[in-house]
This record gives sequence, C-alpha cells and structure tokens, in this order.
Amino acid sequence: MRGGATSSGVDLPDVRDLTVGVLGGTGEQGRGLAYRFGRAGLKVVIGSRDAARAAAAAAEIGSGVHGVTNVQCAASVDVVIVAVPWEGHAALLEDLRDVLVGKVVVDCVNPLGFDGQGAYALPVAEGSALQQAVILLPQSRVVGAFHHLSAKILVDGEIDSVDSDVLVLGDDREATDLVQALAGIIPGMRGVYGGRVRNAHQVEALTANLVAVNRRYRTHAGVRLTGV
Amino acid sequence: MRGGATSSGVDLPDVRDLTVGVLGGTGEQGRGLAYRFGRAGLKVVIGSRDAARAAAAAAEIGSGVHGVTNVQCAASVDVVIVAVPWEGHAALLEDLRDVLVGKVVVDCVNPLGFDGQGAYALPVAEGSALQQAVILLPQSRVVGAFHHLSAKILVDGEIDSVDSDVLVLGDDREATDLVQALAGIIPGMRGVYGGRVRNAHQVEALTANLVAVNRRYRTHAGVRLTGV
Repeated sequence: MRGGATSSGVDLPDVRDLTVGVLGGTGEQGRGLAYRFGRAGLKVVIGSRDAARAAAAAAEIGSGVHGVTNVQCAASVDVVIVAVPWEGHAALLEDLRDVLVGKVVVDCVNPLGFDGQGAYALPVAEGSALQQAVILLPQSRVVGAFHHLSAKILVDGEIDSVDSDVLVLGDDREATDLVQALAGIIPGMRGVYGGRVRNAHQVEALTANLVAVNRRYRTHAGVRLTGV
Repeated sequence: MRGGATSSGVDLPDVRDLTVGVLGGTGEQGRGLAYRFGRAGLKVVIGSRDAARAAAAAAEIGSGVHGVTNVQCAASVDVVIVAVPWEGHAALLEDLRDVLVGKVVVDCVNPLGFDGQGAYALPVAEGSALQQAVILLPQSRVVGAFHHLSAKILVDGEIDSVDSDVLVLGDDREATDLVQALAGIIPGMRGVYGGRVRNAHQVEALTANLVAVNRRYRTHAGVRLTGV
C-alpha cells in the first residue's frame, strides 16, 4: 500500500506553504482536521461564528493554530475546508460566497440523519452537499474530500499515523490535485482521486455505513483503496 | 489488516459444505465469482436463461462448476447470488420469487449508467437494487454484497489473492454472517458487516467512483476498511 501511496502522489503540487482554513473549526471534525494540518507543519486558521470561541478552540488545539470568525478565516487563507454541520451548510456558503471567489473550497460535510437504527443518508435536493456547494459557489473551485475520517482518531494526539485514504472529488483537476497533496501531508493519509462532482452523494452517504461498522466492531473504521 | 480479518471472522458459520448458485453466471461478474468460489472448493452452479450457454460458460470456468437454467440454479442451491445486469434485475427476481422462498439471496447488482464522463449512479425508485430485491422477495433472506470486486481480477487465474474487503449489508444477522463467511472463503477477501438494507444505495453507487479511480490510475481498485 505504501507503493500505491507513492504512485498516486506523482506530480502533485507542493502545498507546504499554503495556509489552510477550517470553517466550523470548533466542531469535532473541524478541530480534528485543524490539529492534523497544524501538527504536519501547515499554517492553520479555524473559523467560527464567534471569534472568542474560535480563539479558545485554537488555543486548545495548539500547533500554532489561530481562531477567528468564519468570514475572517475565509478571507485570509489559501484553501478553505468546510466542516460545518449539514444544517448550517447552505446558509454559511451563501454568506461567504463573495469572499470565497477564486478560492479552493473543500467540502467534507456528510448529510446524515440518525435514529434508533443508526445513521442514514439524508435526501439532498441538489444531490449531495458537494453539488449544493458547487451551485452556491459558482466562482469558487469546489472539491469534496475528508468525508470518512474519524474525528476521534484525528484529535487523538497519541495516534501518529491516520491509516486512511481520502477520496478527493471534483471536476477541476488542478484543485483536486492540490487537495490530494494536502491529504498526503498528514502521516498515514493518502489523497486519491475519487471521481467527479456528480458522484459525491455516495461518498458522503458511505459515512452512514462506517457508523454501522463502528457500532458492530466497536472501532473507528477508515477506508483504503487497494490497487492504487 | 490480517489481524482485523481474524477478529471480524469470529463466530461466523462454517460454509464449506454449501452449494452456491450464481444467477447471471455467464456475465463477467458472475463468471468471476463462480470461478473464485469453485477454486476455493465450494460446489458452484451457474444459471443463465439458456441452459446450453450456462453449460458452456461452466465448462470454461472449470473447477467443477455446473451450468443450468436460472430457475434450476435457484432451486438447487443453498445460497443464490444475483449477478444479472440491472436492466434484468426486477424481472428475474419476480420470475424466481417462489423458488427463492426461504433462501439466502445475495444481491451484487450495481445500477450504473455510463456516458462520455464515465459512470454514474442511476436513480432507483426503491432506493437501491438491494431494496428492490427485498420488496420483490418478501419471503427470502436478502443480503447485499460483492459490489466492488473487479471482474477482471476475479477471472484472472494468475491472481491468487483478491485483495479486497466485501461490505455485507442486510437486516438479518444470521444471513449477513453467512455471507461474510462466504466472502472469507476466497483467499485475500474478507466479509465485513457494512450496514442495514436502507444504506445499500451508496455502496452500490460507489462502484461508479471505483470506475473513475480505475480510469485515472489505470488499475482495478478494491476497497478495504481499516480499523476492523
């Protein structure tokens, strides 16, 4: 699998000097991603509706992570990761449309519902969170990625290597290459191109299956592709 | 990953004496599964609309595989794998409803469309092929599995180990355990519980993403779960 990691990393851009922003960076998934990128040496800014909450979460994360409002975060970074709850997804992107013009925006939101039988995929009028983002941000370079990572593993400082591939979805090759490279910065993680925007729904929804796997096997499952 | 294979195999039933039937066993996926089960020492019967075609395909597969009509196949085996094209899925299951009563029926059909941009998930009125099978076969024990295996790898006799997990979906624990055990009979393969029937759509549709991966990396990709 290490050989695969190398071969899929060929010709990816150097992203070590990029500043990464995480909208919804005070949530579990956002904090986990911010922590891993900060630990890997990237400059990281987390955003929240409330600047004080963002600053407090950033201080807790450490690794030089800064916390500001979502608007300040989106304006000040090179790549913006959207890690807000699905309920706030459309409203946030509409609010930030202008400040996100021209930027690479990485959507990692999974529209899921939960009931007594576990998790299930919510219907999304646009087809998927990624397709909704593409529609709401027509002048941004929208990519889907980081859907299947366990927040519990991301935030656990005892875990050095995150044993998981990241499926990177999008119609803009330069942008998906950049996000694949970003994923590859985190030890153990590998960014693999995973298809076009129209095939995002099933990648987001697969998280419901991972929830079922986690419950059955009492684990935090991840996804790897073989043969790549 | 071997440790995970062992832990997920705990308490699975012994399936070495089962006879496996493959409906649509003359197609690429069906032939591949029949070949792998036959090679692993199971008794295998493939079905086709035309008995002569089934017999010819069985002779080509070898490993003691027999070929008969789909109806004879469904009637004579313990576990029935449905590997027909999506276009013929509903009609075949309606035809075989009575003969499939009480049997474990394993659906591995992926409702996909193809165009100039590659593969995409077709809309399915019932939600997924698996949900359609559950509705059409109310007295069978319907399980979803074997969606992500490359037929090219399955039929390649030079490949000894199929490096892939099989996500097994269903609401009947005894039936999903049995299908997990079946998957585990094939060297390299591992059956992992993957969630309820209602979460089958995304597992079927993910095959469209694997098609995109295969095209980008010129490979035959498979799926593994980490942490299990």
